[in-house]
Amino acid sequence: MNQHFQTIGIIAKTGDQPLAHILDALVSHLLHHQRHVLLDSSAVPWLSDIGGCETVSREEIAARADLAIIAGGDGTFLAAARTLVDAGVPLLGINAGRLGFLVDVSPHEMLGRLDEILSGLYVEDDRQMLTARVMRGDQVVAEGDALNDVVMHIRDVVRMIEFDTWINGRFVNTQRADGMVVASPTGSTAYALSGGGPILSPCLEAVVLVPICPHGLSNRPLVVPAGARIEIAVNEHSRTRAQAALDGQDTIDMEPLDRIIIESKPRKLHLIHPTGYDYLQILRVKLGWGEQP
Amino acid sequence: MNQHFQTIGIIAKTGDQPLAHILDALVSHLLHHQRHVLLDSSAVPWLSDIGGCETVSREEIAARADLAIIAGGDGTFLAAARTLVDAGVPLLGINAGRLGFLVDVSPHEMLGRLDEILSGLYVEDDRQMLTARVMRGDQVVAEGDALNDVVMHIRDVVRMIEFDTWINGRFVNTQRADGMVVASPTGSTAYALSGGGPILSPCLEAVVLVPICPHGLSNRPLVVPAGARIEIAVNEHSRTRAQAALDGQDTIDMEPLDRIIIESKPRKLHLIHPTGYDYLQILRVKLGWGEQP
Amino acid sequence: MNQHFQTIGIIAKTGDQPLAHILDALVSHLLHHQRHVLLDSSAVPWLSDIGGCETVSREEIAARADLAIIAGGDGTFLAAARTLVDAGVPLLGINAGRLGFLVDVSPHEMLGRLDEILSGLYVEDDRQMLTARVMRGDQVVAEGDALNDVVMHIRDVVRMIEFDTWINGRFVNTQRADGMVVASPTGSTAYALSGGGPILSPCLEAVVLVPICPHGLSNRPLVVPAGARIEIAVNEHSRTRAQAALDGQDTIDMEPLDRIIIESKPRKLHLIHPTGYDYLQILRVKLGWGEQP
Amino acid sequence: MNQHFQTIGIIAKTGDQPLAHILDALVSHLLHHQRHVLLDSSAVPWLSDIGGCETVSREEIAARADLAIIAGGDGTFLAAARTLVDAGVPLLGINAGRLGFLVDVSPHEMLGRLDEILSGLYVEDDRQMLTARVMRGDQVVAEGDALNDVVMHIRDVVRMIEFDTWINGRFVNTQRADGMVVASPTGSTAYALSGGGPILSPCLEAVVLVPICPHGLSNRPLVVPAGARIEIAVNEHSRTRAQAALDGQDTIDMEPLDRIIIESKPRKLHLIHPTGYDYLQILRVKLGWGEQP
Repeated sequence: MNQHFQTIGIIAKTGDQPLAHILDALVSHLLHHQRHVLLDSSAVPWLSDIGGCETVSREEIAARADLAIIAGGDGTFLAAARTLVDAGVPLLGINAGRLGFLVDVSPHEMLGRLDEILSGLYVEDDRQMLTARVMRGDQVVAEGDALNDVVMHIRDVVRMIEFDTWINGRFVNTQRADGMVVASPTGSTAYALSGGGPILSPCLEAVVLVPICPHGLSNRPLVVPAGARIEIAVNEHSRTRAQAALDGQDTIDMEPLDRIIIESKPRKLHLIHPTGYDYLQILRVKLGWGEQP
Repeated sequence: MNQHFQTIGIIAKTGDQPLAHILDALVSHLLHHQRHVLLDSSAVPWLSDIGGCETVSREEIAARADLAIIAGGDGTFLAAARTLVDAGVPLLGINAGRLGFLVDVSPHEMLGRLDEILSGLYVEDDRQMLTARVMRGDQVVAEGDALNDVVMHIRDVVRMIEFDTWINGRFVNTQRADGMVVASPTGSTAYALSGGGPILSPCLEAVVLVPICPHGLSNRPLVVPAGARIEIAVNEHSRTRAQAALDGQDTIDMEPLDRIIIESKPRKLHLIHPTGYDYLQILRVKLGWGEQP
Repeated sequence: MNQHFQTIGIIAKTGDQPLAHILDALVSHLLHHQRHVLLDSSAVPWLSDIGGCETVSREEIAARADLAIIAGGDGTFLAAARTLVDAGVPLLGINAGRLGFLVDVSPHEMLGRLDEILSGLYVEDDRQMLTARVMRGDQVVAEGDALNDVVMHIRDVVRMIEFDTWINGRFVNTQRADGMVVASPTGSTAYALSGGGPILSPCLEAVVLVPICPHGLSNRPLVVPAGARIEIAVNEHSRTRAQAALDGQDTIDMEPLDRIIIESKPRKLHLIHPTGYDYLQILRVKLGWGEQP
Repeated sequence: MNQHFQTIGIIAKTGDQPLAHILDALVSHLLHHQRHVLLDSSAVPWLSDIGGCETVSREEIAARADLAIIAGGDGTFLAAARTLVDAGVPLLGINAGRLGFLVDVSPHEMLGRLDEILSGLYVEDDRQMLTARVMRGDQVVAEGDALNDVVMHIRDVVRMIEFDTWINGRFVNTQRADGMVVASPTGSTAYALSGGGPILSPCLEAVVLVPICPHGLSNRPLVVPAGARIEIAVNEHSRTRAQAALDGQDTIDMEPLDRIIIESKPRKLHLIHPTGYDYLQILRVKLGWGEQP
């Protein structure tokens, strides 16, 4: 019953040489399995032969693909996730040799894993995403989604911002810091971890707020339910301007007194993993935890 | 409609002199409101007059009371919670002058707040509790509940234990450390916070695992869903024996190779607060966060 | 023997209204004591009467003053320290009501303290400063001093830099992080503390390196002798450009592959405090530590 | 000029099987080089042939040896250091295969390194040690030395102690915590690091105080000059009794109100390393820092 995922989009990291070999093998394998292959422009330069494929915009992948395969690093995956989540296309991540939290299929096992997945043997894994909007008075001046995190940060280094945080309309506190990370469980192992935040189980319905270099030593990471509405307002005591960043990729310049409102996205992102997928195994490898004796 | 909570149990901290005045005022106020007052033996010594009250065991308070009032500190409240949770008796905490996370009514506002509560004006707040059992092979050798935390810790100081952790049967890692705190959201602001853990919103359906002085620098706090089954096993490389503690009060000596299994209790603890209760306000006071300008 | 400090320079924070009253009282008190008063341009606007004083450049204060009085906050003091250290002028800090680590004389005690100091009753306190130079190949492209810290930091937020550190020519490690703080003991309670660094006793002959949001969880603060030559080089894997900042005030844009070399300044800064000065008392107040029972 | 270190003591870890082979090779090599070999009783059981050696007490090694070779782990080395420091005997550490901070010669390079050292090619490395005494009123009730650290810790787990700290007779603060580590630079990478302390360069003339699980979130590691006199007194608010431990090996039970006084030992410990010894290289291996690209 080799019938799953008839139309497959391919998105790749730009500028990563080892991908050429991987993408050639991937595409010819998919064609061999009679899949319809939609190539994102990021994948085209890597391929020695694009015959039998259709080169399309990312919007068309969103509209038409039953599965998107992302070849690259976690950064490539994050960008693809933000463009594909609303269409509900599931994502499969293939790395170029270095295991990622999101690109968890390695090249040497890629073809075997793909056979299983195309025949319906796979694990589904839904991840909560965040959506943020920057408000100036009553106006929404910018908005966007994030899989890992929404970061509000000083724009000029070595000057502090002061900001007030509210959860569901309730005042939490005023902090002076370099910034604040609001991370999903998926993002808890990224920048939030460097800032001293905890690891959240990927299936936890929660969001973590991690202050970056807070001036007050009792300002600590705070974990709130995924349904919470988080509002952070830069206040008039700030000594510099702030910038917001979505997954560390899309940035928004904030004006004094702008507020950023962060909520969980109602629609989850669908990840596809090979059977046997073990998040904790990836965590052990990435954090250098010892193995089970 | 002054009809709520007809039978009220009173439990007090032992040995805290300021409570004498508070308890006298409390009991005469309840009697004045025609409540039936059940006195725990901890409360009796503080009272100048126990006429009109019934002195009973804590089990009878569990069986008969519609409300238990706990006068003392958070420690008194924790002990009461563990004995009353299974009977479903709601708890109200009164402090002796120093605000606690759980004993949030202060003496100067006590009588007015009580009038409101007895007339039905109050906030209900359900808190998740933990239940732990220590296994030796297939045998349960000890078990108990905790509102704040279950701590597994070295028994002899300055010797490390080595232990393996599983979440829902999946291996997490092997750590060498002084111990491990497994805390509920309520307990996240207690010992777990001293160990470097995050603050969990009290309504979050989660549990946090915080290693105490871990040898490996990449061992970080981990937040998992409340429904998770956490199993921690002291392994054969430990250089000392371990002890488990429930809310830092009930202790269990563990033998080499014993395992401790921690789960959320199906039954939640019911807290009663005055209207206007604000958890974040208590957090701001207790952690010395600045106030909203 | 009212003979100490015959020529006194006055430097003030700009734009801080409470200083007007303080500066008027300060200057008339100094004139009453027959001191020669040199006014920095920062102090002039606050004074109702500058008769009897000389308005000079900061360079002339450096050249001629026996003592410089800094009225303002720690930031004002830091800037003054950098301009006066080479001339060996001792500094006395007066705050506008909010105790600082460096501006430790409060307005209400100012005149009495000044009488003591002018009669020779005071404490001398020498502080180690840092000197930094940015190298591009063999060229020094910028250099300067710092009392608190030299910070190398990402210039564009939410992009990491990767850098290599050497101590006295020996390779320490390669880190990916938001930046690195190199702080003197004086600066250990400033930005370095927010980044997770330890407190260094002000008289310790040491410097602390604190990575800011390091990607690797085992990258920890490192304390080295004051005599060490610290060299930090942004390497080719950085995903953004870096900026260096001296005391968070003077900034230097760094190019890819630039190196920053930080050493202790041979000349120490001389602070003057009233007798009874207690660094630990200031630390207790500033960090909110409980007082001695 | 094979004349260095004529009389060599051998101390070994007990119960570590791989040492048998190492010690046999070591002793026959020393005898071949015409050294006089003094065997500690810990070394005898591992040797297939003790002919040509003298079996002596550790005191005799202290009195007669020109060099002590410690075969085992850092723990073996710590214990030997405390018994040999006063006699001024230099120490050389050989590990059984797993690199230690103190036992830095690995078995596979042992014989070649030894040839160099015996011919005078080696690096001397002096390490500061600590000396502690426990006072009950005016009485010294216990005292001892430590190379790594002096730890004061709760004796019964999950109960806090409250203690006051003085540096050179000046009050620092009152803390509630599980304990306090006072570590030398050598000990800064041991238990103090697990407690959140910084790494001190081994040549730094300093001592670090690291509170263990402090209740107050602004209680941070404090680095003071090596010459400081540190006094820590358990106060009457403690809820359990304390224990002191020297290098985590020798323990002293403390009574309520006992004080512990910690100072640097006037006499330093002499370590011998092969040429090319690089402390930072050991640090990189032990902490898993990446290597220089």
